[in-house]
Amino acid sequence: MAQRIEPRILKGFRDFLPRDESRRSELIDRLVRVFGRHGFVPIDTPVLEYTEVLLGKGGGETDKQIYRFTDNGGRDVSMRFDLTVPFARYMAQHKSELYLPFKRYHVAKVFRGENTQRGRYREFTQCDFDIVGTDTASADFEILLLIVRSMEALGLSAFTVHLSHRGIFNRFLGHIGAAEHSVEILRTVDKMRKIGPEKTREELEGLTGSAGAEKILAYIQAQGTAAETLSTMRELAGGPAEDTERVERILAWAEETGIADRVALDPSITRGLDYYTGCVYETFLDELEGIGSVCSGGRYNDLASLYTKEQIPGVGASVGLDRLIAALEELGRADTGRGTVDAVVLCLDDTLIGHYHRIADRLREEGLSAEVYPEAKKLGAQFKFADQKGARVGIICGPEERAAGTVNVKDLATRESFDNLDLDAAAERAARIAGSD
Amino acid sequence: MAQRIEPRILKGFRDFLPRDESRRSELIDRLVRVFGRHGFVPIDTPVLEYTEVLLGKGGGETDKQIYRFTDNGGRDVSMRFDLTVPFARYMAQHKSELYLPFKRYHVAKVFRGENTQRGRYREFTQCDFDIVGTDTASADFEILLLIVRSMEALGLSAFTVHLSHRGIFNRFLGHIGAAEHSVEILRTVDKMRKIGPEKTREELEGLTGSAGAEKILAYIQAQGTAAETLSTMRELAGGPAEDTERVERILAWAEETGIADRVALDPSITRGLDYYTGCVYETFLDELEGIGSVCSGGRYNDLASLYTKEQIPGVGASVGLDRLIAALEELGRADTGRGTVDAVVLCLDDTLIGHYHRIADRLREEGLSAEVYPEAKKLGAQFKFADQKGARVGIICGPEERAAGTVNVKDLATRESFDNLDLDAAAERAARIAGSD
Repeated sequence: MAQRIEPRILKGFRDFLPRDESRRSELIDRLVRVFGRHGFVPIDTPVLEYTEVLLGKGGGETDKQIYRFTDNGGRDVSMRFDLTVPFARYMAQHKSELYLPFKRYHVAKVFRGENTQRGRYREFTQCDFDIVGTDTASADFEILLLIVRSMEALGLSAFTVHLSHRGIFNRFLGHIGAAEHSVEILRTVDKMRKIGPEKTREELEGLTGSAGAEKILAYIQAQGTAAETLSTMRELAGGPAEDTERVERILAWAEETGIADRVALDPSITRGLDYYTGCVYETFLDELEGIGSVCSGGRYNDLASLYTKEQIPGVGASVGLDRLIAALEELGRADTGRGTVDAVVLCLDDTLIGHYHRIADRLREEGLSAEVYPEAKKLGAQFKFADQKGARVGIICGPEERAAGTVNVKDLATRESFDNLDLDAAAERAARIAGSD
Repeated sequence: MAQRIEPRILKGFRDFLPRDESRRSELIDRLVRVFGRHGFVPIDTPVLEYTEVLLGKGGGETDKQIYRFTDNGGRDVSMRFDLTVPFARYMAQHKSELYLPFKRYHVAKVFRGENTQRGRYREFTQCDFDIVGTDTASADFEILLLIVRSMEALGLSAFTVHLSHRGIFNRFLGHIGAAEHSVEILRTVDKMRKIGPEKTREELEGLTGSAGAEKILAYIQAQGTAAETLSTMRELAGGPAEDTERVERILAWAEETGIADRVALDPSITRGLDYYTGCVYETFLDELEGIGSVCSGGRYNDLASLYTKEQIPGVGASVGLDRLIAALEELGRADTGRGTVDAVVLCLDDTLIGHYHRIADRLREEGLSAEVYPEAKKLGAQFKFADQKGARVGIICGPEERAAGTVNVKDLATRESFDNLDLDAAAERAARIAGSD
């Protein structure tokens, strides 16, 4: 006998028990249906790629978080750490096989050797959706609309998508003579929700002096209706331009399509990442602002410059599925309340097993999920099993019922029994019980 | 400007273009629905695990095919190469949180650094379904039934599940005094479809002499109805026992549930792998036998002995999704014929974009997928785009229609136009066009 091995998994990785995996699949299904209804199409890329392709020639900061190794053929390979870099490579490689504007979604696992403190995982699912090949207000709006529709599809009712525009902010920083510190300023502002306004002011003063900090705070804390906020932004940035006009149009379309009360113009939203150039989005749950944005994104001017000289502008967002599931759990809205099977056909007699499988098939024709308990154990054990699977219906058929061509249907929640039904009547009754709450 | 990087992927890995990924998702969805209807539940496990857990203390033959490396924390880790080993580890680790019999499915990517000749991939999807915790004929039958239902759900009509029983074969080998060579004999018989009966006879003669080979060929080539074949097997194995009785019951239940014409008792099926102990299954497409089995599996006595002293018997099978997709393509049945969006709202005037998004939303309420072309480009380019997305419906609305509160609906296949419809009538008309073929 070989020595036993301890069954364990790596830190930061997860097994999904059926209930959790069912919930994850159900939420992903809902997102995918929304993406499809909006004309987005699915793609997939490899988990493993050339390190050079994922990290660029240099490698760099992200390096330490990457699962990188030499494969048996001597190639320097890495596991993908996001879905954006592979998408950039994909567009550069396959543009001629596609059409523009190209709208794709990609739901897949990514891997980061991050510190596992703070509830971070090393393997997690990203759900990205992007429109590339068009730099238009309509595409910016469509991503905003799709964020709203995605949250609604997940069963969330109290959320707000915070919208801003990096171009206006950069114009404003140029206007007040702070352009040279724009990267640090953007990062500082991006942290404000975490560090608070006082610490933000301190850091901004360090970067631009107190007059500069005052102006920046006036910009990012602009108050009022969306129109008033936009007016403040426009004025502080030095007047109207394509960027402010674009935000104005997007806000008007939000009104026109009835999603305006889901959207807040919020100049403090910057997104830390360098590559955003236009509209940026973050989504907060009204009841759980503290967990941070559950769906974020924005416009970038140039997706694939690392791989091709063709410029591919785009706009997109990413649903933070793990964070959302944690939020739904905290809000008590994670459980769909559905069992893992609707009906269990109990086994009273091993010689009737073929008949039991026929009964289960008949229930499936009625749209139910059904299974046969595989042997004539004590009924107590079988009912316990049905309970553990969350079944609402038990089907009972012994030799007498078999001879009479009937079965008994038991509602496992109310304990009510419907006896001596023929198979059609039993299937209908079972469907009625399973469909009730 | 940084040096450009060639956009390329690793040999043996694949990008999925939207059409291919849509098809894959659609087929997986159909399988998952069948699994769910039969009371199977989904699980997931990590892509990356401790090498020791996946390979055992020794490592061994499979080693060279494994993506194995040392992570940044100095751990010896590997990417999963199948879904069976992780499932064994999962059962040993989580048995107390589950119930028995436990029926799970797992659809996920696995990784093997195999030779990429012969159309093998290094990253591919497995769809496994198993029932563990019960050694019953009913569970064996349920897997057989689920293989049949899975193939039907994929749209296949001409296929046969070949059934045999390793226990009977081993009993037969013992009976003719060839038990000591059973592993080599099983492997030889398993290859017969590839190497042909003559080469098989030669190899068997080398193992057991010509008298032994003759007997083995008589066993594996037993002819007749299922009952006659079983009778031959029973006789050659030395008489009836639990194993032959079990096969008899399974065949009777196949009759009773109406799947008997999908099932062939075929004593030449052995499955090469050591761990099978009871029923074994292979599924062949009648029109494409040459591609080999598209869904295989069997009963194993002990899933998790590497990790726990508890014995966990099980039975299961695995759908070869990549092979099936290749087969569907060869049979000309891969394409669903559906476009990636039902309707495109054309953009005649940039000032109407908000209105166009409202129209698209109205079409979605009707159950259609719809999108807005994002800018007022020439109509020819917009119709070309609609064509590339496979849209059946074009919606046309200029300032005049907007003022009149109407739109024009164009059937992009027949070129028929339905003009001046209000939004409700347009949505209904669009749904009718998209629903037709």
